[in-house]
Amino acid sequence: MARGGLQKTMRKLIMGIDIGGTKVAGGLMTAQGRLVKSLIRPTHAGGGYASSLSQIISLIERLYHAAGGSDGLEGIGLLAPGPLNPHTGLVINPPNLPGWENVRLAEIVEKRFGVKAKVENDANAAGLAEVLFGAAVGYRHVFYVTVSTGIGTGIIINKKIYHGKNGVAGEGGHVSIDYQSPYRCGCGSLGCIEALAAGPALVRRAQARLLQEHTQPSLLRDLTQHQPARLTPQLIARAALRGDAIAKFILKETGFFLGVWLAAMINLFDPEAVVVGGGVAQIGKPLFKTLHETIPHYAINPNFARRTPILPAKLKKNVGVYGAAALFLPAGAEAENF
Amino acid sequence: MARGGLQKTMRKLIMGIDIGGTKVAGGLMTAQGRLVKSLIRPTHAGGGYASSLSQIISLIERLYHAAGGSDGLEGIGLLAPGPLNPHTGLVINPPNLPGWENVRLAEIVEKRFGVKAKVENDANAAGLAEVLFGAAVGYRHVFYVTVSTGIGTGIIINKKIYHGKNGVAGEGGHVSIDYQSPYRCGCGSLGCIEALAAGPALVRRAQARLLQEHTQPSLLRDLTQHQPARLTPQLIARAALRGDAIAKFILKETGFFLGVWLAAMINLFDPEAVVVGGGVAQIGKPLFKTLHETIPHYAINPNFARRTPILPAKLKKNVGVYGAAALFLPAGAEAENF
Repeated sequence: MARGGLQKTMRKLIMGIDIGGTKVAGGLMTAQGRLVKSLIRPTHAGGGYASSLSQIISLIERLYHAAGGSDGLEGIGLLAPGPLNPHTGLVINPPNLPGWENVRLAEIVEKRFGVKAKVENDANAAGLAEVLFGAAVGYRHVFYVTVSTGIGTGIIINKKIYHGKNGVAGEGGHVSIDYQSPYRCGCGSLGCIEALAAGPALVRRAQARLLQEHTQPSLLRDLTQHQPARLTPQLIARAALRGDAIAKFILKETGFFLGVWLAAMINLFDPEAVVVGGGVAQIGKPLFKTLHETIPHYAINPNFARRTPILPAKLKKNVGVYGAAALFLPAGAEAENF
Repeated sequence: MARGGLQKTMRKLIMGIDIGGTKVAGGLMTAQGRLVKSLIRPTHAGGGYASSLSQIISLIERLYHAAGGSDGLEGIGLLAPGPLNPHTGLVINPPNLPGWENVRLAEIVEKRFGVKAKVENDANAAGLAEVLFGAAVGYRHVFYVTVSTGIGTGIIINKKIYHGKNGVAGEGGHVSIDYQSPYRCGCGSLGCIEALAAGPALVRRAQARLLQEHTQPSLLRDLTQHQPARLTPQLIARAALRGDAIAKFILKETGFFLGVWLAAMINLFDPEAVVVGGGVAQIGKPLFKTLHETIPHYAINPNFARRTPILPAKLKKNVGVYGAAALFLPAGAEAENF
């Protein structure tokens, strides 16, 4: 079976499924990394386990038939919200998939479709996808970070995801740069970079700043009609572009926090490149400028650190589908047992 | 040559040389990790480059002859003070080896003795030695830290040293847990764990505490005859054992800082085990107790973190010689190019 199978293998498609709290995206990819079909549907997570699982299974089913059944498929990569175990394909108890508890997702999919399946967390897979198809093509050792509602990271070593003993490595968002921070992280710790620089953290810091600087006029008050709950990272970015002092300060502080933290990551990993993705990262220049300025100040080898490329992520739409499918590409598939 | 060479290789000895600012230690090791000879001599670093290099070379010479020349040697592993480049064997400009500037140490030794040589930094090599011969035997993926005058770390993945792109990875001592700390690190950054929890940091914090608590009696004042400059980590440990409140506070704080930081390292690496060595770590229980208590509070997966063994280092004397020689043991020698 294995013999002479290479050519056949290369003609097979890989299915990538990206399961989120609100929607499930799926696609079929060639071994060359070309997405030949993609679909999307609501997760119906609110309906509980049976409802969301059936949405996922029916999406897989459609793609399965489009690929010509199990003979046409190399494997099915599944991105699920954490915590999960990529070694065993177990989805533990994701907060945004109500009712899911210790679901052997890989096993369920394998049994149902007769195709090998793997489960992975989204930041790890997105990092791998950026190395194989995106911003970091040409690099083997990359630190990936996505800054959006949370901060997720992926450690890619030799084009493979580094998993750690229990499959939970790469939680760089939960490195504290301020152990006595007033900002408590969702994980319970204080001063995690996620608690300081993810989207909700920008909003919280801006809200606090508006209270402190209550005598200073700010566009942010107008843009939110004086309702702080309406603040979003996007509004802060817009106000900063229009010169608002408080908004500019918040972005500068965010770039500084990310710079302090990335310097630590560079000190640890000395990567060939860093890739920065996610909604908050799309604020772009006002953020990256401070980040670039800060890194050398907190890096032990400022010259090496300054020369480490900090690349904006390239894959936007379908990054999850790319990442999921990448788990079955030769370079991604051989991931060692850690 | 390669064919049938395995048995012969296994009968050869490996030389390990540990170059410090005050002394050079060297030894010969069997492929089974047994140290069959060891020597030590002063570095004569104050005499400049020529003087210290000649001390090193003459030590290598004695061991070279003891091993029966180049035919009896598999390789020469050299630990030098950083910064250095393990990929090229270049020692850049170590502060405690005056006059050394971009010294191609591996090349010098290879040319002189006709034996393959490698250069490595001390914490990396000590970590590898602990995995191969010490506290972490049986584990493949280990985070190593030595807490003494500085804090050095080594990332061991699959029984190999992880080097990074420029050979400067694993600088975990320069991860800041307090970006606005009053304690500036030797590297220029603020709040690095080295600036908070290495030996000199314990002393600085105790000195500051004695000033703040100037009305509170403390054994530390007696033990130093009221000369704060005489404080050492050992005196602090001794006073703590005798119940001194300030000394106990300093050790507790040190365990807390190390715990916050190790939680971040566990979040990133999810290692099979952590090994903690160095003089400060020898303070033992009063430090490790707080460290163990702190880690779960700052870890994203408290249960996994709690189950990650935190092992005291086992190799004390000759750890450098073991580590240097380990660079030529099969598992250590194949280190990939990162």
